[in-house]
Amino acid sequence: MAVTGKGKAEIVCTGSELLSGKLNLYVPLFHEKLAPLGFRITGERSSGDSLEGIRDSLAAALRRADLVVACGGLGPTFDDLTRQAAAAALGRRIVYSKGCEKILAYNYGLKKLPPNFRDQCLLVEGAKPLENTAGTAFGQVLTRGRRKMLVLLPGPRREWEPMFPNFLEEEIRSFFRFRPARVVKLHAAGLWETQAEKLLRPVMSRFPRLDFTILAGAGTVDFLVSGDDSEGAVSRAEKACCKALGPALYGSGEETPASAAGKLLLAAGRTLACAESCTGGLAAKLITDIPGSSAWFLGSCVAYSNSAKTALLGVKRSTLVRHGAVSSECAAEMAAGARRRFGADYAFSVTGIAGPDGAAPGKPVGLVHFGLAGPRGCRTFRRQFRGDRGFIRTFSANFILDELRKIIK
Amino acid sequence: MAVTGKGKAEIVCTGSELLSGKLNLYVPLFHEKLAPLGFRITGERSSGDSLEGIRDSLAAALRRADLVVACGGLGPTFDDLTRQAAAAALGRRIVYSKGCEKILAYNYGLKKLPPNFRDQCLLVEGAKPLENTAGTAFGQVLTRGRRKMLVLLPGPRREWEPMFPNFLEEEIRSFFRFRPARVVKLHAAGLWETQAEKLLRPVMSRFPRLDFTILAGAGTVDFLVSGDDSEGAVSRAEKACCKALGPALYGSGEETPASAAGKLLLAAGRTLACAESCTGGLAAKLITDIPGSSAWFLGSCVAYSNSAKTALLGVKRSTLVRHGAVSSECAAEMAAGARRRFGADYAFSVTGIAGPDGAAPGKPVGLVHFGLAGPRGCRTFRRQFRGDRGFIRTFSANFILDELRKIIK
Repeated sequence: MAVTGKGKAEIVCTGSELLSGKLNLYVPLFHEKLAPLGFRITGERSSGDSLEGIRDSLAAALRRADLVVACGGLGPTFDDLTRQAAAAALGRRIVYSKGCEKILAYNYGLKKLPPNFRDQCLLVEGAKPLENTAGTAFGQVLTRGRRKMLVLLPGPRREWEPMFPNFLEEEIRSFFRFRPARVVKLHAAGLWETQAEKLLRPVMSRFPRLDFTILAGAGTVDFLVSGDDSEGAVSRAEKACCKALGPALYGSGEETPASAAGKLLLAAGRTLACAESCTGGLAAKLITDIPGSSAWFLGSCVAYSNSAKTALLGVKRSTLVRHGAVSSECAAEMAAGARRRFGADYAFSVTGIAGPDGAAPGKPVGLVHFGLAGPRGCRTFRRQFRGDRGFIRTFSANFILDELRKIIK
Repeated sequence: MAVTGKGKAEIVCTGSELLSGKLNLYVPLFHEKLAPLGFRITGERSSGDSLEGIRDSLAAALRRADLVVACGGLGPTFDDLTRQAAAAALGRRIVYSKGCEKILAYNYGLKKLPPNFRDQCLLVEGAKPLENTAGTAFGQVLTRGRRKMLVLLPGPRREWEPMFPNFLEEEIRSFFRFRPARVVKLHAAGLWETQAEKLLRPVMSRFPRLDFTILAGAGTVDFLVSGDDSEGAVSRAEKACCKALGPALYGSGEETPASAAGKLLLAAGRTLACAESCTGGLAAKLITDIPGSSAWFLGSCVAYSNSAKTALLGVKRSTLVRHGAVSSECAAEMAAGARRRFGADYAFSVTGIAGPDGAAPGKPVGLVHFGLAGPRGCRTFRRQFRGDRGFIRTFSANFILDELRKIIK
């Protein structure tokens, strides 16, 4: 339940490509634009290009929300039906705008507009047009009474995005006069969603006017706190959450298990290397996702085969024969080998059975051994995860990155 | 406009994270699952976790569509409200299922279920439960009359995805008895979306009753053909597309650049290793995403630092001094070094500037050098990519994996 700000906004996207293969990339973008204006998005609907469908979506959204943003369907072709749908939803006419005609004529250096340009001068009655710096479709700001606003935007991001700083933000701000909300993100690892909820429940009941969301990842739990911070409630709740989560808390904002460990390494002037078997490069990938990680990360040896474990990491043949590659003995030798070969201060290792095949008697899918070597010696860990190959791999990488953080700390 | 099949399906996603920062990755996945069963998705709605909101979304979707798939909100915590909302939308009660209790007790080896497990045994009256192989929430299949079906699925993909082949597809097929549409996916690399469209346009106009979708990735283009195949039109269109795409076509179905190369390596009995700098483990991760890749993949040396390039891969110090790490000379030595150290038949290397920092005079962000060493010697490539860090890294990995495929072929 991430409820932010006072205003409710709904998004209505049109275009059947959103329902076949393409991802809808817009909702997080609209969230970013609208949250600072005091709005939380309470619903989003994507539908194909039917006039009735769009009209009904707009009418329903206007009943529920204060602000409705419709995106797409303002172009000049037959399946661009949003302005008619908006007129129908509000019970208004479509009118031709001489002002829009002048702007298009000027922008495109035309004396007389061709028919498809003239279509773009059609506005819903009462609309304020928003100029388009990258196309011919105007945005439209429509209000009903003193409490509802409907904004029509063209579909392409490069066309609608510039409309926000150019007039739209100001239109929304001055119409609603909402106080903006503050959103805080906290991240924990090494505990389950239900454990996190148990720890945080007392905080949640102390701040009934704030909104809380718990999101479970693979070995991580994200926690969002949001609301009006004019009296410092969000800041106080943030502090209380941090205290409740204790050592499980690894960071805030855009922090990841890898970046949290990296921050500590950088501050301590220490370096890291790793040796990966079942994660197969994923741990290194999560580390090198971070710009600037080269300041503390030396590299990883992805030793997927036994021969690579021996040749590149110095794992003893006898260890592999006696205990197998998925063993704490092998994990310890891998970590020590990576630390030595890369000349790093710390090194971790991951070796396990990510599945779906590869299980052996006593070594089920999901069994993972870890090593963590540092200036004070080497520790090993053994964990049994449940899930598919991708989940086991991600959980493994996050687990050892978080253990690394705890050991440096 | 990819319109496929006779049945209308709507998707209702719950979870306020979809309205705050997270992308909804599920709609294209549901499209893939439902299209072969004869359904096109006509609408999608995401809403926060309010009981009334979810109930109204489900009721409205059931009025418009034949099949409604609700995803999320089946967990054991306070904001998991989908089963109550579904019961309210259908006017039914919630009942406790002894059968579900038995399954959970057996799967988790428990004699008595704890309270949060007991909550998971609550079903909407009349529901057929779908077993969850990766969590405690059951899926639920509900029907109303002879024409409407409501399916409740848990939110995490790893939990709901296995439910489709396990019973759900068969439930949908036998209830609706639609003639399935056939969907063919083709994958190409090494060309742009607009080039792919140009090549394929003649095929698209030869088959006006089929639906075509082009999706651009990072260095890859996916192509979907779908429609009624009872007279072989989809198969004929597939053949024509393969011919039009020529050597750019690397596979079909779930093939990736890594799996396409791996298939050829496996058939030839050859092995692969790699040396990564700017991709930082991503290439190895993409390779080891494939179950069974240990049959042909020996490992990767992620040599992020210059010292690791020298110590682990045998890159000459003089090469680094004279040409720098981002050079074709360094790429060639990295590939040769990885081939030698891992004892592999083939090895590739990637070294470049993924950004946002790290650019130098003559070496802008996005410049990447590649090496590809095999039994017949070593080739190098130089490419300049445009995009953010993630895009440059993914494009680089896909590029060299596709060059590897071409060389083995």
